[in-house]
Amino acid sequence: MKTRAAVCYEPNTPLKVEEVELDEPKVNEVLIRITATGVCHTDLHFMKGEAPVGMPVVVGHEGAGIVEKVGPGVTTVQVGDHVVMMVSFSCGQCRFCAEGQPTMCTVGFSVMATATLPFCMEKRLHVGDQYMHHLFGLATFAEYAVVHERSCVKIREDAPLDVVCLLGCGLSTGMGASINVAGVKPGESIVIWGVGGVGLAAVMGARLAGAGKIIAVDKNPKKLALASKVGADCKVNASKGDPVSKVMELTGGGADYSIESAGKAETIQQAFSSIRSGGKCIVVGMAPIGSMVNIPSYEFLLGKTITGTIQGGIRHQLDIPRYVDMYMDGKIPLDKVISNRYHSLNEANEAFRALEAGEVIRSIIELR
Amino acid sequence: MKTRAAVCYEPNTPLKVEEVELDEPKVNEVLIRITATGVCHTDLHFMKGEAPVGMPVVVGHEGAGIVEKVGPGVTTVQVGDHVVMMVSFSCGQCRFCAEGQPTMCTVGFSVMATATLPFCMEKRLHVGDQYMHHLFGLATFAEYAVVHERSCVKIREDAPLDVVCLLGCGLSTGMGASINVAGVKPGESIVIWGVGGVGLAAVMGARLAGAGKIIAVDKNPKKLALASKVGADCKVNASKGDPVSKVMELTGGGADYSIESAGKAETIQQAFSSIRSGGKCIVVGMAPIGSMVNIPSYEFLLGKTITGTIQGGIRHQLDIPRYVDMYMDGKIPLDKVISNRYHSLNEANEAFRALEAGEVIRSIIELR
Repeated sequence: MKTRAAVCYEPNTPLKVEEVELDEPKVNEVLIRITATGVCHTDLHFMKGEAPVGMPVVVGHEGAGIVEKVGPGVTTVQVGDHVVMMVSFSCGQCRFCAEGQPTMCTVGFSVMATATLPFCMEKRLHVGDQYMHHLFGLATFAEYAVVHERSCVKIREDAPLDVVCLLGCGLSTGMGASINVAGVKPGESIVIWGVGGVGLAAVMGARLAGAGKIIAVDKNPKKLALASKVGADCKVNASKGDPVSKVMELTGGGADYSIESAGKAETIQQAFSSIRSGGKCIVVGMAPIGSMVNIPSYEFLLGKTITGTIQGGIRHQLDIPRYVDMYMDGKIPLDKVISNRYHSLNEANEAFRALEAGEVIRSIIELR
Repeated sequence: MKTRAAVCYEPNTPLKVEEVELDEPKVNEVLIRITATGVCHTDLHFMKGEAPVGMPVVVGHEGAGIVEKVGPGVTTVQVGDHVVMMVSFSCGQCRFCAEGQPTMCTVGFSVMATATLPFCMEKRLHVGDQYMHHLFGLATFAEYAVVHERSCVKIREDAPLDVVCLLGCGLSTGMGASINVAGVKPGESIVIWGVGGVGLAAVMGARLAGAGKIIAVDKNPKKLALASKVGADCKVNASKGDPVSKVMELTGGGADYSIESAGKAETIQQAFSSIRSGGKCIVVGMAPIGSMVNIPSYEFLLGKTITGTIQGGIRHQLDIPRYVDMYMDGKIPLDKVISNRYHSLNEANEAFRALEAGEVIRSIIELR
């Protein structure tokens, strides 16, 4: 079939929005009509060549939509199901999946690295003979996508797809970082470095978990204002003075947890410096490949921990429907992170430009 | 009273073994006749000025002995009790003690930083009017010591004090790093970077916990040979080729856990590189203050964790008697780490020289 898609042919060139061919779903694959896709900063790393990916590639990894067709052997979704597509693929069989850490899935890493469909490592997108990579095995900047059935999670039909699409990556990452990886307990303190979509979701997760003090750090006053609206107790403008000292003052010697969601080596260092002895720093942001994090060795003598995570350590099938329920129940204001909406794939380049320029918190593109 | 002690008057000068005055134990303090003290690499950092400490200071922090006198209010030990002295002090009341992390005790950090007795911050050692610091609130390179009652743990009387003294720091640190901090489970893999006293104890702890593969890394063939004797499955000589690559080969892509017990920033980096995605690296060694650990940011995208620990996260009153029991039952060959014995404080400088030169695994000084 034909579908329109946003294609990156070379790093640092504009996306080309064009009609491409999409092959039929094969074994365990499904065809999804995408109704909304998030515009996530992570794609920019690939589009700018800061992280390697095969080209050409159809970008986008925060999609939601409706199942239109299922290939042979599909058991987890049916035609008509509403689904959110997952940035991290889990095979359900490797050691990580077996241990309850599906975002660390071995097959998932290979899907990320090859930008092909899981297991078969094939591509279903092409223009004539030129096949195109599926970013994260998804390629959501398109009207239709063929993905592995385990790349999507079925959700309730009354949830707005143009909000919960962001649970495919950014919002679940932030929620999971606070709830699953930090494991914030009532009364504890947490500082979130960078309150874009991921950081704001981390604030929501910490609020939900009963955190005693939630501190948001950012250079952007608009993002800080929004952080307060979704549950942060204190704001620190990182462009005024030393933010680490301010966090130290606010917490009386360091927070119990810090989350780095700015994606910079420097911020990772600050996030680690801002926790107390015995505290835990969680790196969620994707810093440019090749950047180094420099940590004074004595900080380890303080019993401090720094850990990385993929998509907030969520268990896709378990946590995504829960997050959707909590949003629908008014417990987490997921929609508040959406500052801009676009209505056509033609606006893909503008959407990324505005995101990189810091003009938007999070944006989505509605399709059709 | 008078006692002989080994005093460091200035960094990088020989210890002066001399007769000093020791004041009576005050409230909650005890007088201990020290029968054996370990010679631990950590003292060298202070003696060489690599870590700050007030001077003059009586060194030594791995002591064992017999309680000779108790001050007012002492309830946990009695005259005649056999005790091991603890490098980390725990007050029993701060947030860390309350959380079951007594080696992170707030008062303990102050004792370490000030090298005075806990709470009162006083010194009991002096020559005339010149008072001397107690390293770690202990000062075990002496025939007698006055310490806070919580600086020692009562143990069974049939245990040889000239072995279990090493549980005051090195051996409990290694055991605890494997058992408490890594939490090695049966069948898992662990790589120990640096198999001096701490690393060898980490090997023993991992063996006890049922580790599937224990890899010892060191440049010293004697230490590697001993690691095999106490339970290591594989040896990697770090002076031949790239040890990280060898660990990767032996584990098929990285160990579940790594322990850094060499006390060098470079080894911390290697230890972190040698774990698998989602693995955990535990820093136990004390690298020179001021040294930096440089970590590629992408390693956090692999879900890896690096954490520091004080004395292996042991709970003094709980774990030390257990470790003594297990040694007495033949389950952990603690005595195997002792390669050299000295019989007088006069040999203190020689003991440290031989330790630094790598001529000994671990040594102890027997007193009287």
